[in-house]
Amino acid sequence: MDCWKINYESYDPKEEPKQEALCVLGNGYIAARGAAEESHDDDIHYPGTYLAGGFNRMESEVSGKIIENEDFVNWPNWLILSFRPVDGNWLNLDEFDILEYQKILDLEKGILIRKVLVKDNDGRETFLESRRLVHINDRHYAAIQWHLTPKNWSGNIIVKTALDGTVINNNVARYSDLNQDHLNPLDQGQLGEDGIYLNVETKQSRIRMSQAACTNVFIDGQQTAVNRETHQKDGYIEQQITFHAYQNKKVAIEKIVAIYTSRDNAISEPFAEAATSIDRAEQFDQMLSSHQSAWKRIWHRVDITMDGQEKDQLVLRLHIFHLMQTASKNTIDLDVGVPSRGLHGEAYRGHILWDELFIFPFLNFRVPEISRELINYRYRRLPEAEHMAKEASYKGAMFPWQSGSNGREESQVIHLNPQSGRWIPDDTHLQRHVNAAIAHNVWQYYQVSRDKEFLSFFGAELFLQIAKFWCSKTTYNEKRKKYEIKGVVGPDEYHTRYPGSDQPGINNNSYTNIMTLWVLDHAFKILDILNQGRRGELLTRLNINHEDLDRWDRITKGMFIPVIEKNIIDQFEGFDQLKELDWEEYHKKYGKVLRLDRILESEDDDVNRYKANKQADVLMLFYLLSSDELNRLLIKSGYKLDKDFIPKNISHHEKLSSHGSTLSKLVHSWVTARSNRKKSWNHFREALMSDFQDIQGGTTPEGIHLGAMAGTVDLIQRCYLGLEIQQDVLKFNPVIPEKLQKICTRLRYRSHWIKIEVNKKTLRIISDGGWADEITININDELFTLRKGDRKEFSLL
Amino acid sequence: MDCWKINYESYDPKEEPKQEALCVLGNGYIAARGAAEESHDDDIHYPGTYLAGGFNRMESEVSGKIIENEDFVNWPNWLILSFRPVDGNWLNLDEFDILEYQKILDLEKGILIRKVLVKDNDGRETFLESRRLVHINDRHYAAIQWHLTPKNWSGNIIVKTALDGTVINNNVARYSDLNQDHLNPLDQGQLGEDGIYLNVETKQSRIRMSQAACTNVFIDGQQTAVNRETHQKDGYIEQQITFHAYQNKKVAIEKIVAIYTSRDNAISEPFAEAATSIDRAEQFDQMLSSHQSAWKRIWHRVDITMDGQEKDQLVLRLHIFHLMQTASKNTIDLDVGVPSRGLHGEAYRGHILWDELFIFPFLNFRVPEISRELINYRYRRLPEAEHMAKEASYKGAMFPWQSGSNGREESQVIHLNPQSGRWIPDDTHLQRHVNAAIAHNVWQYYQVSRDKEFLSFFGAELFLQIAKFWCSKTTYNEKRKKYEIKGVVGPDEYHTRYPGSDQPGINNNSYTNIMTLWVLDHAFKILDILNQGRRGELLTRLNINHEDLDRWDRITKGMFIPVIEKNIIDQFEGFDQLKELDWEEYHKKYGKVLRLDRILESEDDDVNRYKANKQADVLMLFYLLSSDELNRLLIKSGYKLDKDFIPKNISHHEKLSSHGSTLSKLVHSWVTARSNRKKSWNHFREALMSDFQDIQGGTTPEGIHLGAMAGTVDLIQRCYLGLEIQQDVLKFNPVIPEKLQKICTRLRYRSHWIKIEVNKKTLRIISDGGWADEITININDELFTLRKGDRKEFSLL
Repeated sequence: MDCWKINYESYDPKEEPKQEALCVLGNGYIAARGAAEESHDDDIHYPGTYLAGGFNRMESEVSGKIIENEDFVNWPNWLILSFRPVDGNWLNLDEFDILEYQKILDLEKGILIRKVLVKDNDGRETFLESRRLVHINDRHYAAIQWHLTPKNWSGNIIVKTALDGTVINNNVARYSDLNQDHLNPLDQGQLGEDGIYLNVETKQSRIRMSQAACTNVFIDGQQTAVNRETHQKDGYIEQQITFHAYQNKKVAIEKIVAIYTSRDNAISEPFAEAATSIDRAEQFDQMLSSHQSAWKRIWHRVDITMDGQEKDQLVLRLHIFHLMQTASKNTIDLDVGVPSRGLHGEAYRGHILWDELFIFPFLNFRVPEISRELINYRYRRLPEAEHMAKEASYKGAMFPWQSGSNGREESQVIHLNPQSGRWIPDDTHLQRHVNAAIAHNVWQYYQVSRDKEFLSFFGAELFLQIAKFWCSKTTYNEKRKKYEIKGVVGPDEYHTRYPGSDQPGINNNSYTNIMTLWVLDHAFKILDILNQGRRGELLTRLNINHEDLDRWDRITKGMFIPVIEKNIIDQFEGFDQLKELDWEEYHKKYGKVLRLDRILESEDDDVNRYKANKQADVLMLFYLLSSDELNRLLIKSGYKLDKDFIPKNISHHEKLSSHGSTLSKLVHSWVTARSNRKKSWNHFREALMSDFQDIQGGTTPEGIHLGAMAGTVDLIQRCYLGLEIQQDVLKFNPVIPEKLQKICTRLRYRSHWIKIEVNKKTLRIISDGGWADEITININDELFTLRKGDRKEFSLL
Repeated sequence: MDCWKINYESYDPKEEPKQEALCVLGNGYIAARGAAEESHDDDIHYPGTYLAGGFNRMESEVSGKIIENEDFVNWPNWLILSFRPVDGNWLNLDEFDILEYQKILDLEKGILIRKVLVKDNDGRETFLESRRLVHINDRHYAAIQWHLTPKNWSGNIIVKTALDGTVINNNVARYSDLNQDHLNPLDQGQLGEDGIYLNVETKQSRIRMSQAACTNVFIDGQQTAVNRETHQKDGYIEQQITFHAYQNKKVAIEKIVAIYTSRDNAISEPFAEAATSIDRAEQFDQMLSSHQSAWKRIWHRVDITMDGQEKDQLVLRLHIFHLMQTASKNTIDLDVGVPSRGLHGEAYRGHILWDELFIFPFLNFRVPEISRELINYRYRRLPEAEHMAKEASYKGAMFPWQSGSNGREESQVIHLNPQSGRWIPDDTHLQRHVNAAIAHNVWQYYQVSRDKEFLSFFGAELFLQIAKFWCSKTTYNEKRKKYEIKGVVGPDEYHTRYPGSDQPGINNNSYTNIMTLWVLDHAFKILDILNQGRRGELLTRLNINHEDLDRWDRITKGMFIPVIEKNIIDQFEGFDQLKELDWEEYHKKYGKVLRLDRILESEDDDVNRYKANKQADVLMLFYLLSSDELNRLLIKSGYKLDKDFIPKNISHHEKLSSHGSTLSKLVHSWVTARSNRKKSWNHFREALMSDFQDIQGGTTPEGIHLGAMAGTVDLIQRCYLGLEIQQDVLKFNPVIPEKLQKICTRLRYRSHWIKIEVNKKTLRIISDGGWADEITININDELFTLRKGDRKEFSLL
């Protein structure tokens, strides 16, 4: 099995398979979906998506006032390429006979290949091999190459090549009531001899998008004289290219596209740049060559190999591939965040939630220059978060649960339950824990990169403003003598209010409280790291005085945690008092109850009443924080739990989860990795296959789950390798699943590049030599020094 | 004397004085010129300038084909504020009697204050105090506050407040044939009760600019009910506000403006953001308070005090003020470079030349986060520079001498000699040395900041591509057995070709050759710093192999330097053979001969024929490189000069300079600092006063000379403090000019903040405590260790 190629051998092109959705090529700027370019021209409404951000606020839609925000808008379709014999029909895979068909997504080279032998209605057999790329090293280029061979005929051929700005955003059926039409045509026309161009503008955000394309025909490597005819209407331009083709003589057709928007840096005007770029463009093979080299360099940095499970290896690489297509070096400078569904599908309308949390560990250890930029995305929206905190009578910065272009809150306030057809209030925007995630990301980035300049000038400000928010969000309970956080929603979105309450939000969500503890505790570490001058500047600018710092300190020493039965951390205060759910009955009735909330609502019941969660918030803590760290924080706030409190909590909470989130399996795999390897591996495989097999049934075509994808990669890295940074020491504590023979990967840590090879017996660490400074590593709780060029081997037995 | 306030006591508002040009308030995003807001509404065509970049290519203009590139375009005028009694005339300083007048540019607080007592044609006396700010901490806000007191009358007053998009770019008279009109009106209108807005778009680059303004009237701190009338036409909107004013009762009028463009990050759409911002805006006094605190923090970082010379101190601060208004934290993310004339005047049409070279040492040691971003500006234009090299059959990246928005070459190819009225060919674009300057900046930034991540992912690529260019630009002279660089122009723009030659460019310009030597020598240092993984990535991506590296090495060991008379480095090969100029005669005839080139051309002669330079290129080397460094490079290439070659070269070259560049005095001050303190001080003062007194007669109103301004600051720092980084050691070697008692400043060095105090006897160094790492300093060639919180004192006697 080739662990680099997704080969759709069994693919029937007349039926869109689930995996079709995974065939997206992208470079962080342009994305191109793998739908059939040859036949379904009119069906391709999502050739690519651009920029992260929300484009619609559902509540506004409902209240009749549409505030559009169109950052997540489809590119005009630049894939259109078709052919027909002058006296025949356009290539149509739905109607022609398909004699052979093969489709390959080559992850290693970043190309999509399709080979098809068709017989048209007149009996003409034609073999077509198509290769497509979205250039990973030059964000503005994409290209398609066709090799076309008439098998049993000769004659004049017409090739149609077009740019189509009449596309709409209709990837997600349930959003069909929202505005789908975001592009205003501006102009289109011919460009030189062989070029066409199209300029459009988004309706509300007024972002100009320019595309230029040139299509040429080559026989025996020589450009062939062709006849061209151009047809156009508002928002659409098409060129028909006529030339003679001979039986069994391969013809190469190349379409090169240059794409710019008015949001690009270092441009004069997008159309001017697109025209210049298409003029300067290389031919397909040259472009392919630089594209492949770039992917080679990327894979060298980011690959993770797992000996033993070939299919799993392939899917793991697919996840890495999607990650690197969403957040690449090309996204630096574009001011984009990480949308939950990548740049792939339109679900969540491109909103930014908390998915970076899962993606950062992977990026930090390989391409920190990208994670830095993702923190910058948040930093640029700090003023909006500061405004939001102020409006809600808090201090510091309160980042919204879902946001987009300008950083304002874009969470829905009602949502549709497809099971009941009812619109119900949605209070999930009370997930203030996104602020802890952002702070955690800043810290993690700094831990891995040691980028002091960035921490000093950007990261620290973000972190401290979030700390300030948490401090103001916390109230002191005189009776308990503890600090509390009220009126929030945890990552478990099933519980948004107490049964019967008319106030949304629950109190003392353990995840939120402990992460707040973590933030305030680490705020002091950040202040210690800053030099005195910068610390002074920041404290003045943020208006943080000694009293504030004292309160931060007191909170870390007295945060309330809802501990029950001595060792069990409850989901939130009062969760334990909720009704037991008859899981067996529901499983019997509905099978998997992944979306228990919708089931209950359709029964006129309310999941808020039950001791049942979408994902276990407490387990999320074990995923994020090491047991040492968690223990330290709990003790600091006055909770001394038994040594085995973690497994106890795992078995307590596992029973209560419906796994309604794609992240849930991941977290469960993590927490069982050391106690129950087999169970952990099974959870891992479910998480790994969730998009590949579209286990939620239909959500993958609406967009891959980038956080879950990244999580599987991170699971190998942080969980199975046991990778952690503890007090400036890089710690390894591998636990290899039974099914695997060996895990290999490369890490970047504080300017060192380190190669890791682990099998069940041995851990091998090879340093390629970084900066002069040596680093300290911890293996089996023993410290070692890793110097430039060191190769070390440790027994794991 | 208040060393913070420029007080125009002798100012007659009816005559525009030279210094008026200096009264620009800016924050790197918005700039506002100090022209009389009250009376000259129609004359203010340059209230502010936006973004760096060229907007016109002179050669294209002349050849009849205008390629516009409008990055350096005036904002619509948002300053317009005037008043009249209902039955009187609009305030008019040209026609009214001015009984009292005072104007103050307060550098410390970043505000412009004007106090005027006027008597109108009907005998009404009114006292008006105006304060204006451009917010340094929130790039989108600017504000004007008026305190108006009718002295001998009561009655209804009409205040006029407007936004005017009908402005043109007409600051520079000799550009009047170029297109001055860059804005298309889009729409304008009312915004709520008290607001107005204006949207315009640049004609070619299609950048949308949105402004929203609200104007309110306060009496005794209470907002007063007013009557509002709005008038508008395409591109212009005005509100007339009527209210009653009482004799001797002070009225406050506040105009707050919010400004956005479509180039901003973290926005939905510029008008939407401007409307939101004006809605959220604070009142003037609150805005002033946060603005002042921000300036306080800035001054704490950037101030340099010189005890002994109060006026010089004031002008030095003016220079720092202009620097911090041009390159501020607000410019980060805007993708702007440093235009030669700041964001102040329109000369050079906003083009980016090599001025960063002079500005970097100041920024690096105080606000490295800004210099990093300025390198990024170049990095984003690396593909264009790579293209330019390829087009000219070179390798690597060749940055153009003058560039703008998209990084293409924008130097003029002919220019007007105002002295003769003739257009003459201009070959100054052959100043390839700009590439050495960019590489030098990368290195200097890294030296001061130790920002390894940046060097690794951005800086090194830029540096190595420039090294590659220089390598390909160099040719081997078999006869000489030396490497040569032909067909260039040095910083001395008088010499662009050999007399009688039909080929532009001169050969072996010593500055260019030695800086190339420096670049290739340091390319190896950069490669050493990179870790193996990244080095491998980069060498592959840039296609640099061992043969290339061998050639780089050979060039550094065999660069040809035009040494004459054993110890004199000639300006370029053959310069010494040129005709002697009869300086005395020309001085007699023309006085100062700052622009000798124009004088000679007007006499049908050619400065290319003479041994006379605009500025001495060789001396520029002494400015940029320490004598140790320079000696090392010369010896490496086989030139062993006498120990005293530097003073010898200085006296040789000094005689040959017309000081036609604002930078020339600076360089001369530098090189004489140790040999002739008095002379050095005189040169320094001339450089210091050059904009303040507009010594070139008329160039300052067209824009301050930012490089020269920065240079004076750098002179204090690098020259008089003797500050240098040598092999990871921070070296001080102070030489205090006789006229000064003491110099104090703060430096930021590798995350340490260090306070320096030097008088003639003592150097005091106070470390405020940076990261844990200690640093090594060198005082009088002795090494010391500086630890967190250290205070050290060294005798200089």
